[in-house]
Amino acid sequence: MRHLLDTHTLDRETALRILDVAEDMSDTQSREIKKLPTLRGKTVVNLFFEDSTRTRISFEAAAKRLSADVINFAAKGSSVSKGESLKDTAQTLQAMGADAVVIRHSASGAPRTLATSGWISAGVVNAGDGTHEHPTQALLDAFTIRKRRCGTASRGRDLAGVRVVIVGDVLHSRVARSNVWLLTTLGADVTLVSPPTLVPQNVSQWPVRVLYDLDEALADGPDAVMMLRIQLERMNAAYFPSEREYSRTWGLDAVRAGSLPSDSIVMHPGPMNRGLEISSEAADSPRSTVLEQVTNGVSVRMAVLYMLLAGERDDERGRDL
Amino acid sequence: MRHLLDTHTLDRETALRILDVAEDMSDTQSREIKKLPTLRGKTVVNLFFEDSTRTRISFEAAAKRLSADVINFAAKGSSVSKGESLKDTAQTLQAMGADAVVIRHSASGAPRTLATSGWISAGVVNAGDGTHEHPTQALLDAFTIRKRRCGTASRGRDLAGVRVVIVGDVLHSRVARSNVWLLTTLGADVTLVSPPTLVPQNVSQWPVRVLYDLDEALADGPDAVMMLRIQLERMNAAYFPSEREYSRTWGLDAVRAGSLPSDSIVMHPGPMNRGLEISSEAADSPRSTVLEQVTNGVSVRMAVLYMLLAGERDDERGRDL
Amino acid sequence: MRHLLDTHTLDRETALRILDVAEDMSDTQSREIKKLPTLRGKTVVNLFFEDSTRTRISFEAAAKRLSADVINFAAKGSSVSKGESLKDTAQTLQAMGADAVVIRHSASGAPRTLATSGWISAGVVNAGDGTHEHPTQALLDAFTIRKRRCGTASRGRDLAGVRVVIVGDVLHSRVARSNVWLLTTLGADVTLVSPPTLVPQNVSQWPVRVLYDLDEALADGPDAVMMLRIQLERMNAAYFPSEREYSRTWGLDAVRAGSLPSDSIVMHPGPMNRGLEISSEAADSPRSTVLEQVTNGVSVRMAVLYMLLAGERDDERGRDL
Repeated sequence: MRHLLDTHTLDRETALRILDVAEDMSDTQSREIKKLPTLRGKTVVNLFFEDSTRTRISFEAAAKRLSADVINFAAKGSSVSKGESLKDTAQTLQAMGADAVVIRHSASGAPRTLATSGWISAGVVNAGDGTHEHPTQALLDAFTIRKRRCGTASRGRDLAGVRVVIVGDVLHSRVARSNVWLLTTLGADVTLVSPPTLVPQNVSQWPVRVLYDLDEALADGPDAVMMLRIQLERMNAAYFPSEREYSRTWGLDAVRAGSLPSDSIVMHPGPMNRGLEISSEAADSPRSTVLEQVTNGVSVRMAVLYMLLAGERDDERGRDL
Repeated sequence: MRHLLDTHTLDRETALRILDVAEDMSDTQSREIKKLPTLRGKTVVNLFFEDSTRTRISFEAAAKRLSADVINFAAKGSSVSKGESLKDTAQTLQAMGADAVVIRHSASGAPRTLATSGWISAGVVNAGDGTHEHPTQALLDAFTIRKRRCGTASRGRDLAGVRVVIVGDVLHSRVARSNVWLLTTLGADVTLVSPPTLVPQNVSQWPVRVLYDLDEALADGPDAVMMLRIQLERMNAAYFPSEREYSRTWGLDAVRAGSLPSDSIVMHPGPMNRGLEISSEAADSPRSTVLEQVTNGVSVRMAVLYMLLAGERDDERGRDL
Repeated sequence: MRHLLDTHTLDRETALRILDVAEDMSDTQSREIKKLPTLRGKTVVNLFFEDSTRTRISFEAAAKRLSADVINFAAKGSSVSKGESLKDTAQTLQAMGADAVVIRHSASGAPRTLATSGWISAGVVNAGDGTHEHPTQALLDAFTIRKRRCGTASRGRDLAGVRVVIVGDVLHSRVARSNVWLLTTLGADVTLVSPPTLVPQNVSQWPVRVLYDLDEALADGPDAVMMLRIQLERMNAAYFPSEREYSRTWGLDAVRAGSLPSDSIVMHPGPMNRGLEISSEAADSPRSTVLEQVTNGVSVRMAVLYMLLAGERDDERGRDL
């Protein structure tokens, strides 16, 4: 794997390979072998044009556990704010020795441009671009669903027959997009539930079912319900109801969560707006995987960095780990 | 030791144990064995809701010398500023693998809430909370007093009979509070000297003597005089005299410092307002321990992190060091 | 070498020694031995009073490849912004264990003050001070010129007979000053080309030729043309022409770059204002060394940190590397 830019073009085999390597990483973490020497001498740059402490820290922790050096480059206050182009910034970072660039950018497509323009040879990981994609989020979500269903027998398994409901502002959500592509690639059935004003125009071309009634979607007893984070700064816009109305109609409260089958899971990418898209009862219930998702995020990002940076040693992987 | 939340509830034995381990740490540093492998694979998160570059760097240096990985989480610009709760932030950090959380917070009691709520299992270190406590500052102060008095014979010694004068805005000072509890637990006699408007209301229940005249306190020839930092942003408030008046009445100038016995020490937690609560002559004199306090701060924080994170290996400590 | 404060007082022998050690460092990097254990246990502090993400990251990468611990101290939001003096900040950092302080400051002379005042014993590296000097930039520029001319036969060679043209706002440029002193110390012939309003008053005492016509300077077929970055925030000042006028008269466009001999090189310290002082054709042409300069910057900074911090082990260097 040279780059990880999206899940839309990620084939089933590579996706499963990432999930399986993430299982290996997860195993070493739980065996208290937290520090692996695998990427010693490699440099990972976190190139963040938008603030995202959570995602940045998750990649940082992943890289450090593989013994890579990590350099954080926040665009704010840097030469970028003096007008330097993405090309020059990226080439400069590579010239300093960056082996991989983890990029978060407000412009959809920036990671792909970086990876395919020929500007740099370093591996590129999309850590969220505009309203386009956030592929490691979808991979950690898929990992979490698989792990909850299959436990130690997860390796090699896809998500055939798994029913996932994604709820919220799909229109603006890169998390939703990445999950739609990845989950369906892995065989899951995906249902989107959203206010009518927040459904993408071309959704009819997506391999999903679209509903406007959350209770109708939950009545089917889905295996997983994924609540999207509401961007509060968008709440005043024309297409949004009031917070109270949103919460009542589209929020996952205790009653709705309690109506789910006992082995259904409740997911959220975080940070949560408790009381808005998800109630505390739902967020803290045993069916909630919110914190497992965070833990799995580190394992998945370890896997991605490993596959990007130690790919040439694939046949030696057993030994390296 | 599971957490370090305050010195008020810290018993004498544990306090002495921390100081003794800090002596070990200090020894390794001065023998140029700066990097110990003790906490390899452990992750320490600095969770700072208030800026404090000094304290953050001191913990960071301490953790790195023990080979831990350090992740800095500044609340500003993070999901915290998007309204995420302390609980969710802390649980997220632990889910990413944090073994210890060093927390600085503007709310008194936040570290205790974090440690005792059952939210997380990671060790919690209070790095300053509101006007409540700053326990590692008091520990490094006690360490500094003991070291100056006892030198290489410090181990196991308490501060019985040591007379310490603490001068300044006691009302708002977490440094003063932490020192009062710790120093008296270790047997020291503590005198507070403060403008009448800056004495806490319940000070009569504290195990200290309170004076309003600095020269009277110094006339006794105390072993240590600890000057508190004036928060300049509070200087305009009703209970404060002018800077000039404050300096003349409550500041430690060359004359006052010179009146002390030759082996008395002058302490300050830093950063100093030179010319306000302390003059440059006093700050730079041989009796000043300002820089020793900084150095000892790293040793004390190494000890605390060690005891939190390698506690189960206490019997092997000789080998680890 | 105790400190690196400027190139004005740097003697030829030491300068060549730095370049030769940088060659060693460069060799290890290209042999994929990215991580050297040389400075394990040493602490390098980046003390930046001005933002400079590029320079800070370059020093950070250099220190980490030598296995040093790195602590970043940005003055913004720290005790410095509460009025702490340079002396107290530096002494505090040293008391925490800093072995070297890399300082960027808006005041010309701040690094020298720090190094020569007796405040601290740590090694001091000037990472740019006011309009005074930026010595590691000049060293990496000299390294780049030498490497392009001599290739693997660079070691021990000076720049005798090399003709360098430096173009732009010389008046405000610390990069220009550091290059003038270093390049002439190493035997190069330096020509400055600048708008008449942007030439320093005392330039007649500098060991350089001054021209006001870029095309006249290029007609000589120089070995290297170094374009200075225009500080756009100065463009409105009285002594500056418009951007368009500047670009036409003092910018290196494709035609001018194409008029150079085929082995001449085009240099820029970055970040570039493409289309202003340099056109994209010139910046991206094979004669451009912009990215080599960045890569060489890490090697040169590794050499400087090595010579400051491992100087006592000079005779063992072959073994350490």
